[in-house]
Amino acid sequence: MPGTIRDTTHIPTLISVRHEVDAILAEFIDEQERSALGPETAPLFAAVRRLIFSNGKRLRPLLCVAGWRAGGAPGDSHAVLRVAAALELFQAFALVHDDVMDDSDSRRGLPSAHRALAADYLSGGGRHGRAEAHGQGAAILLGDLLLVWSDEMLAGTELEAHTRSRVLPLVAGMRTELVYGQYLDLLSTGRISGDVGAALRVARYKTGKYTVERPLHLGVCLADGGPQLLRMCTDFAIPLGEAFQLRDDLLGVFGDPAKTGKPVGDDIREGKATVLLALAFQNASRAERRVLRGLFGSTNLSSEDIDRIRSVLEGTGARQRVERMITSRRRAALATLDTAGLPPDVAETLRQIVWTATERHA
Amino acid sequence: MPGTIRDTTHIPTLISVRHEVDAILAEFIDEQERSALGPETAPLFAAVRRLIFSNGKRLRPLLCVAGWRAGGAPGDSHAVLRVAAALELFQAFALVHDDVMDDSDSRRGLPSAHRALAADYLSGGGRHGRAEAHGQGAAILLGDLLLVWSDEMLAGTELEAHTRSRVLPLVAGMRTELVYGQYLDLLSTGRISGDVGAALRVARYKTGKYTVERPLHLGVCLADGGPQLLRMCTDFAIPLGEAFQLRDDLLGVFGDPAKTGKPVGDDIREGKATVLLALAFQNASRAERRVLRGLFGSTNLSSEDIDRIRSVLEGTGARQRVERMITSRRRAALATLDTAGLPPDVAETLRQIVWTATERHA
Repeated sequence: MPGTIRDTTHIPTLISVRHEVDAILAEFIDEQERSALGPETAPLFAAVRRLIFSNGKRLRPLLCVAGWRAGGAPGDSHAVLRVAAALELFQAFALVHDDVMDDSDSRRGLPSAHRALAADYLSGGGRHGRAEAHGQGAAILLGDLLLVWSDEMLAGTELEAHTRSRVLPLVAGMRTELVYGQYLDLLSTGRISGDVGAALRVARYKTGKYTVERPLHLGVCLADGGPQLLRMCTDFAIPLGEAFQLRDDLLGVFGDPAKTGKPVGDDIREGKATVLLALAFQNASRAERRVLRGLFGSTNLSSEDIDRIRSVLEGTGARQRVERMITSRRRAALATLDTAGLPPDVAETLRQIVWTATERHA
Repeated sequence: MPGTIRDTTHIPTLISVRHEVDAILAEFIDEQERSALGPETAPLFAAVRRLIFSNGKRLRPLLCVAGWRAGGAPGDSHAVLRVAAALELFQAFALVHDDVMDDSDSRRGLPSAHRALAADYLSGGGRHGRAEAHGQGAAILLGDLLLVWSDEMLAGTELEAHTRSRVLPLVAGMRTELVYGQYLDLLSTGRISGDVGAALRVARYKTGKYTVERPLHLGVCLADGGPQLLRMCTDFAIPLGEAFQLRDDLLGVFGDPAKTGKPVGDDIREGKATVLLALAFQNASRAERRVLRGLFGSTNLSSEDIDRIRSVLEGTGARQRVERMITSRRRAALATLDTAGLPPDVAETLRQIVWTATERHA
């Protein structure tokens, strides 16, 4: 059985986690700005703050703290909150580079970093012909900076040598997995296929592991939790991570842009080989395949095009099958919690996270 | 006075540094490949090996080891070689992202990473229309991977807590400086001006500090060297770092592509606000300014265009002034060495590095 909470007095409640992580991030970013080269770097800092303090879900920090509480939390809460904040910087790095690679216009309801940096450049007197290239280059640098900061936040966290030696390989694994997952995603982009297994594998690496499993494991290791708890977390995290990405697939086509903060159909426009699309393609008639092939990867999708795609995704049963996949994965994650023997409040928190991650609208 | 070498038996000679650093890098990359997701990631590893084991100068590793020897080198030589190897991974990260941002075709005489990855994608059956975007995206990921590896190499190096606490802030400073320097470079790209001070400042941050000062300081800290030695290193490194970049400016226009591994005129084509160009612009006649303005940032430069640019750079005296700036900076660096009281073999090694960095052809 995983450990019990030995001392609850200094454990932040999950409601306060968001505030505390945000405070750490705000202070860290302010400090970085004070030691930056000069006023020219202001657009980078504006872009960081816009992204970090927009309506992020803070899922990874919450899972990290939940893992720490599940592990019995003997360590100091400031350390776990700093690691949680480092995860948020890492996530921001991933989003900024992802948006450059996909050439996405928006993120969290705001212009994506490369678009915003291009606009800043123009309003600062930059040349029109260079604005796009400038925005891309500046966003590549911004992502680099966020990755470096994430590491700096982590390296500057006081940890016992024993804990550090458990945490660092986890972080290294998380970072390389994300890069490999993104690379698999790039390789499959623009290739329409019915290979659901391949699409699920991409989802697991580019999203699932660094969104759920790794943050939980980090928390457990910070609390010096044992191998049994780590295994339980994996059993819980793998289906939840997949369900999280599957919900993303659905929101990308059927979601409300006012809530998701992204235009409808981005995945189709970008030619992403999602599980949703693979399922549709598997069961599509010849005419339906023509629709999918014709619109997949096309930069200009009209609202009629979106309607046609939706009707293929509905008609082939793909939407419903993805909903069922989410349901079965949610059940598996919840069932793991039921028998995990976690402290009741931690189990309840994780249950809430399961529902939030799989039934969200944004 | 800086310390003397207490034990020379385990100090690698600088001639062997390259081999030892290369062996560490080769082993590290092999190990990373064994733990990668699968055969799909092969193009990333091929690109890494092509870049790292092409004819890099290994300037940063050499300076790191020289700093360590200057500091009296009480530490273990394996640690300093690993840190030196981490610097090389960091440099590879910087080159890969720099080439994406500048859309450069080649590096070290080979196709740049994004071009090579685009070609790999096509030969693996990728779609023509996506090849360029794929290459860019894959190179962004490759740079991310190299940055993550550089950190992993460093984090996995056994260091005393005291040494670690001196090394980490230096590394953090080096990384953020590079990003800010690159950002200043981006901001000034495409803007022709006679502001030599601004161009020198960009050069200092985007190249000088992470090429010379930071590697030396890292070596000194690994050897537990004191503040006086660090100051001496700064006095030596600042002029040398500037001279290194100034030589780059000249090689970019007057160098032999067979030796530099880059086409002539890349800086002009990319609209880089180099010191060389600022000096030319300052002293240019109206007609000469027209030539510079007309060709600056133009994607297609004929060999006649290059000749016209060269003749303006010569006619305005800019080429000669840059040569003089290099000479005076080299003198300053050498003069610092003369009075530094370093062990004679270390001073001699640093003298050789000064000449290599400022009189090179590649």
